[in-house]
Amino acid sequence: MEKEPLLMLPGPVPMPERVRLAMARQAINHRGAEFGGVYADCVRVLKDVFGTENDLYVISGSGTAAMEAAVANFGRGRSISCMVNGKFGERLFNISQRYGNARAISSEWGSPLDLAELKRQLEEGAEMVTLVHNETSSGIRNPAAKIGKLAREYDALFVMDGITSIGGDEVKADDWGVDLAIVGSQKCLAAPAGLSAVSISGRAWERLSEDRPYYLDLSAYRKSAASKVMETPYTPAVPLFLALREACLLIEEEGLTARISRHRKMAESIRAAVRAWGLQLFPRIDDDHAYSNTVTAVRLPEKVSDADFRGTIKKAGIEIAGGQDHLKGRIFRIGTMGAIGGPEVLATLAAVQYSLKVHGTVLKDDGLLAACEVLG
Amino acid sequence: MEKEPLLMLPGPVPMPERVRLAMARQAINHRGAEFGGVYADCVRVLKDVFGTENDLYVISGSGTAAMEAAVANFGRGRSISCMVNGKFGERLFNISQRYGNARAISSEWGSPLDLAELKRQLEEGAEMVTLVHNETSSGIRNPAAKIGKLAREYDALFVMDGITSIGGDEVKADDWGVDLAIVGSQKCLAAPAGLSAVSISGRAWERLSEDRPYYLDLSAYRKSAASKVMETPYTPAVPLFLALREACLLIEEEGLTARISRHRKMAESIRAAVRAWGLQLFPRIDDDHAYSNTVTAVRLPEKVSDADFRGTIKKAGIEIAGGQDHLKGRIFRIGTMGAIGGPEVLATLAAVQYSLKVHGTVLKDDGLLAACEVLG
Repeated sequence: MEKEPLLMLPGPVPMPERVRLAMARQAINHRGAEFGGVYADCVRVLKDVFGTENDLYVISGSGTAAMEAAVANFGRGRSISCMVNGKFGERLFNISQRYGNARAISSEWGSPLDLAELKRQLEEGAEMVTLVHNETSSGIRNPAAKIGKLAREYDALFVMDGITSIGGDEVKADDWGVDLAIVGSQKCLAAPAGLSAVSISGRAWERLSEDRPYYLDLSAYRKSAASKVMETPYTPAVPLFLALREACLLIEEEGLTARISRHRKMAESIRAAVRAWGLQLFPRIDDDHAYSNTVTAVRLPEKVSDADFRGTIKKAGIEIAGGQDHLKGRIFRIGTMGAIGGPEVLATLAAVQYSLKVHGTVLKDDGLLAACEVLG
Repeated sequence: MEKEPLLMLPGPVPMPERVRLAMARQAINHRGAEFGGVYADCVRVLKDVFGTENDLYVISGSGTAAMEAAVANFGRGRSISCMVNGKFGERLFNISQRYGNARAISSEWGSPLDLAELKRQLEEGAEMVTLVHNETSSGIRNPAAKIGKLAREYDALFVMDGITSIGGDEVKADDWGVDLAIVGSQKCLAAPAGLSAVSISGRAWERLSEDRPYYLDLSAYRKSAASKVMETPYTPAVPLFLALREACLLIEEEGLTARISRHRKMAESIRAAVRAWGLQLFPRIDDDHAYSNTVTAVRLPEKVSDADFRGTIKKAGIEIAGGQDHLKGRIFRIGTMGAIGGPEVLATLAAVQYSLKVHGTVLKDDGLLAACEVLG
């Protein structure tokens, strides 16, 4: 068998062996005590990683399912302000349009959000605010704490998509006033794709819609989780829960602080390399906004074709991401999530540097050297 | 480690080793050609197993998610007649109530359905009919072909939950006039829990609702499946797809006819044992209805406590199911799905026979002998 490529994508990400092997065992009864314990372990660790003491449930469905659960259970018929500066902000807006009276507060992808406009909409009575904390489509980290504070001032519910930040960057859902926080399994948690989790504040529960979906009815999750043996309302994706539990135990073993610092260092080292090469990071950063610590978006030098550039890197056994939608061919993105560290980052930067050179880009300085200095 | 118990439940069921091990590999990119091929393999085999040439998509969510997808995409605002003679018929009714004007046509659990009442409702303009083909809650197999014919006569859409029949018993979705057929991964397909699949007829597509859910929007599945590399609209549960592909290849290797006959023989042998013991099968069968070939429901002899009875069996390393809801303590259920055959059935029957005796039931004849004669 060929060696599997190294995935340096903004998800899916390399999984530790323990996580993968946890899936290979024989089926277990998902209405039994063992499964209840697995689910409880996931919830215990995830609450810590979310920075929340609120209820938290694991959904057998992707991050998009959890986004929809948040909006459909608590936003139906409400006026919803959707902060949009990337693909996933757009997705939350699209979902919100199906359930409530949604208004987008849009900036160019990767550009800072308009907090003044949010304030105006809250003054006009917006009842829910949606935000993508870390936009992998553009490599920007949005000011969740600030937006949560605003939402709380006006008594609006705050939905935060932390799909690509939670577990890799600092998130303090309760301190930031997040009512509904969401994570996906296949990002910074380094578990397989297919699960998501959502935390739900008491304020949100008070506003639970009467008209709810069925599979994503969060009140059914609450009821089943409270039964004597912790359960999910419908059949869960058992092997993925087994894997997520291992991934959670590994987070505990690494320690959340160390884990976040590992993710930060990887992203910083890539940014250092980009600057040394004389390339430009993609997002525009102001005082509130910051570069993502889990994915780095870089402007592709003009005249370099994305297919050639990433093709050469792929030949070296490494997959990085291109731009999505209108950014196709204009940026490239390197994910730094999951069971990776310095060696994977250096290998990736070496392949990127080689590919840039091969395809005719003149580089200013030695990016690898700059990256090594950051990695220490 | 203790030996895992033998699961003789109506799902989850024992998985073949190849299926389990397929999940242990490193993450792959779900937007790449390899994943597209995995998805395509699943669809090809499942269409054959469903007996359909219609579109078919795999959903990262349990059978309940696929039930909801069928009703939410095609039944919103419509008048829906729900055939109910067990727990899952009730579930389809509950889902239908959230989206349309649902009327239940209810019989006692395990009792034949009232086809005359269905005809009356169709004459009154019912636009959708829902049916659970194989009710694991009561061990009855409902007359899907007959109900499909009725629905077609009155131009109503026919939703058939084949979650616990497809892959283990004969299903001919197209011949029976099924517009939306549903299967779950962890039943007769012998794959892990967490996926479902739904097939969609051209007649159904013509009636696609304007107002659709997001994660379960089947038109999004259609669009993504038609892209150059076959994809799912949102991140799929990749390890489960890898496992489902292996499970599908195993179905091809066994041959569908042989597989169905294996399932039938297992159920027949259990029914033979039950009759020999002088116990009673639970469902009431008429000319249209039949005993399930994937789960056998048996009346628990009076004075035997369910906890004692199944506790003794569990000590022998075997898990069978009790009754659900109002049938708790009144019936027991033996699943015969998945990677099992004669040895597992005989071991189970031996444990059941022992437990019945230990807990004071006088048995008429030798059930094991009767079962062996059927198993040949």
